[in-house]
Amino acid sequence: MSILIENLLILTMSDGSDAEPVIAGSIGIVNDRITMVSSEAADVESFRRENASGLRVLDGGKKLAMPGLINTHNHAPMSLMRSAADDIPLMDWLHNHIWPAEAKLTREKIILGAKLAMAEMLLGGTTTFVDLYWMEEAVGQAACEAGIRAVLSPAMIDFKKEDFERDFEAVFSRYAAGKCDTVSMMAGAHSPYSVSRENLLRVKELSKQYGVGINIHLSETADEVQIIRKSHNMTPVEYIDSLGMLTANTLAVHCIHLTYSDIELLARRGTSVSHNPQSNMKLGNGIAPVSKLIAAGVNVGLGTDGPASNNDLDMIEEMRTATLLQKAVTGNPLALPAWQALRMATVCGAKAIGKGDSLGRIERGMTADIILIETQKAHLYPRTNMANNLVYAAKAADVDTVIVNGRVVVEGRRLLTIDLDEILSGG
Amino acid sequence: MSILIENLLILTMSDGSDAEPVIAGSIGIVNDRITMVSSEAADVESFRRENASGLRVLDGGKKLAMPGLINTHNHAPMSLMRSAADDIPLMDWLHNHIWPAEAKLTREKIILGAKLAMAEMLLGGTTTFVDLYWMEEAVGQAACEAGIRAVLSPAMIDFKKEDFERDFEAVFSRYAAGKCDTVSMMAGAHSPYSVSRENLLRVKELSKQYGVGINIHLSETADEVQIIRKSHNMTPVEYIDSLGMLTANTLAVHCIHLTYSDIELLARRGTSVSHNPQSNMKLGNGIAPVSKLIAAGVNVGLGTDGPASNNDLDMIEEMRTATLLQKAVTGNPLALPAWQALRMATVCGAKAIGKGDSLGRIERGMTADIILIETQKAHLYPRTNMANNLVYAAKAADVDTVIVNGRVVVEGRRLLTIDLDEILSGG
Repeated sequence: MSILIENLLILTMSDGSDAEPVIAGSIGIVNDRITMVSSEAADVESFRRENASGLRVLDGGKKLAMPGLINTHNHAPMSLMRSAADDIPLMDWLHNHIWPAEAKLTREKIILGAKLAMAEMLLGGTTTFVDLYWMEEAVGQAACEAGIRAVLSPAMIDFKKEDFERDFEAVFSRYAAGKCDTVSMMAGAHSPYSVSRENLLRVKELSKQYGVGINIHLSETADEVQIIRKSHNMTPVEYIDSLGMLTANTLAVHCIHLTYSDIELLARRGTSVSHNPQSNMKLGNGIAPVSKLIAAGVNVGLGTDGPASNNDLDMIEEMRTATLLQKAVTGNPLALPAWQALRMATVCGAKAIGKGDSLGRIERGMTADIILIETQKAHLYPRTNMANNLVYAAKAADVDTVIVNGRVVVEGRRLLTIDLDEILSGG
Repeated sequence: MSILIENLLILTMSDGSDAEPVIAGSIGIVNDRITMVSSEAADVESFRRENASGLRVLDGGKKLAMPGLINTHNHAPMSLMRSAADDIPLMDWLHNHIWPAEAKLTREKIILGAKLAMAEMLLGGTTTFVDLYWMEEAVGQAACEAGIRAVLSPAMIDFKKEDFERDFEAVFSRYAAGKCDTVSMMAGAHSPYSVSRENLLRVKELSKQYGVGINIHLSETADEVQIIRKSHNMTPVEYIDSLGMLTANTLAVHCIHLTYSDIELLARRGTSVSHNPQSNMKLGNGIAPVSKLIAAGVNVGLGTDGPASNNDLDMIEEMRTATLLQKAVTGNPLALPAWQALRMATVCGAKAIGKGDSLGRIERGMTADIILIETQKAHLYPRTNMANNLVYAAKAADVDTVIVNGRVVVEGRRLLTIDLDEILSGG
């Protein structure tokens, strides 16, 4: 199966600096791979010749092509709890609203919520998401059907240990052994305060045994830091490191309340951080020191967090919020420039899930996860600087076409793999 | 000219609290006024009978109707400078990019930029905007043609005093005397640091002479506070008050760096504040103490600021950013709840421009500025709390229909009064 998309403007993200060029050209895809990115007519013609049989040719219509966005933190099925409990404190939110609602979730509800979240993500240009939740096996089924790339992380939490073990085994046997091209996995742990030392070590053991990374909420609240300091006389980052769980294959989520030595430790271990600005703001949890993390050499990806604490899954907005928030908190309009926000949502996200060599850039040999953005919009005119327009003015609804793993899943803003009307008619 | 819109969900904003109800019903409009808002079939029938001749009936399709959004601060023609100078300090931005670019603006460019901004605003549900700029007379022409409600504020700045005087006179004679139903005016001053005492007093004199309010950037940066303290031994708020310019008809924009006594003074004078969170963040100017202002009784509206420092004109996003930012800076998830952000963008905006009795709510007798929002979207499902969905998840592109002063100007997301294709084909 081959696709040629002509007449594009392409932001490859290969440069990854403020000099990132936008080139006019075409993209050729064979099966799940990008095999041609070029402005040269000769390259396009030779791609056309080599892939003549069954070639699908799309007119890019001067849309802006860029790598699909990578959402490094989500709890997708929580979309069913959107706007159910806003403007309240985190612990009230968890104990009195979220956990009781979750106790009633069935496998069918998990699939429904996950599909709803996937619909929103795909329509907004997100081609990969990392999920940390319960019943991830069901999320995997939804992801395979929807054709979105998913990194499933069954989450250990003390009061659901057996469920976690079962779910981990189910996800591994059903998806991780290459049975669904777009689904992979990590070993998840809810947090240092909700999982015992013994259970954290079990997560580490599974991650080693199955050769998968570790995914954990870390240093999200000042309360958490206080609890861990009290019980372990360490910061949460130091505590997780003391268990041997702060590795280059660990994705640490939030990382808001950090000491300077925490930042150095994260950098030294090569641990990636998932920054979730809108959720952090909404829950009043604080502002992560993203500029400092990046300056220290830490790889920082972007995430929305779950739709119950955001309340949307819009990665373009998340890029915008990330840069605006660092400028606001540092008082420095040069902080986290637009090109860095674009990197966070693509290149850095790919690295955070161990796929830096195959995802996050539009290059020959990379996996074909590509989005096309319509720029003929009032809010994207004039086109003086398209990368800056993208971060400071673009909207989820500007995403016109979405390709995941070489498969067109959204075209002309219509979902091809999810029956959204059926979901929305649910009440 | 009468319009009946049936089958709506209506957020009237009459209550203005977290108990704000969403009612299922119909809205009747006669000429520029709302004459019926009701859930009762009998009321709809009698509206239909009384306005039978030439009545236009629209099916609301269960869309959410709410008052048109009021953007209390813009420099509309700057849309042409969108993304031309990002990620740089304010004074560099002003002196080396914006002012040189503005020196080359012609009347035609002003109209083009204003129309582009109006297209974006209308498509995103903004029905009223306050503009503070040069050549406002040209912005007025664009506003009349586009059918958007505009409060034009020709801006005094020392190096363009004569231009200001001419523009003020032109705006007044052309629009303010009721010659265009949707255009009114204020007397603008750029700021306490860029306008001399004498010229500020001239603005005050004009405001009294012509019976219009005063519009001024105030306490936007720490630098400004330092300059005014040094030259006048007062805060900027105290200085403007000392000139008799801090009144109930003054709209003070930004108000980031305030002392407690500044806040009390603003409350005592009944001065309204325009809060522009995204611009304040992007320029690294600081975070306005909005929760404290509201607690002190100050009326706070919302604004986007100009498209060169935001870089879009999206009031739904601005609501979201306002609430997230107050939660982030206070560490309190209860700060500035969703319903208060909705009030800021409607009721408080109307009050800030002296139209609290006629705009900002959907009620019998109010001016017919109404927007209809499509809620059959992945990111707005489920519909557990529609007001919260609106603030935390809705998008500009969800706005389907826009009515200003009883005239339908956007229908099915299509602009009826501006030829957007012509603007976008400009290069």
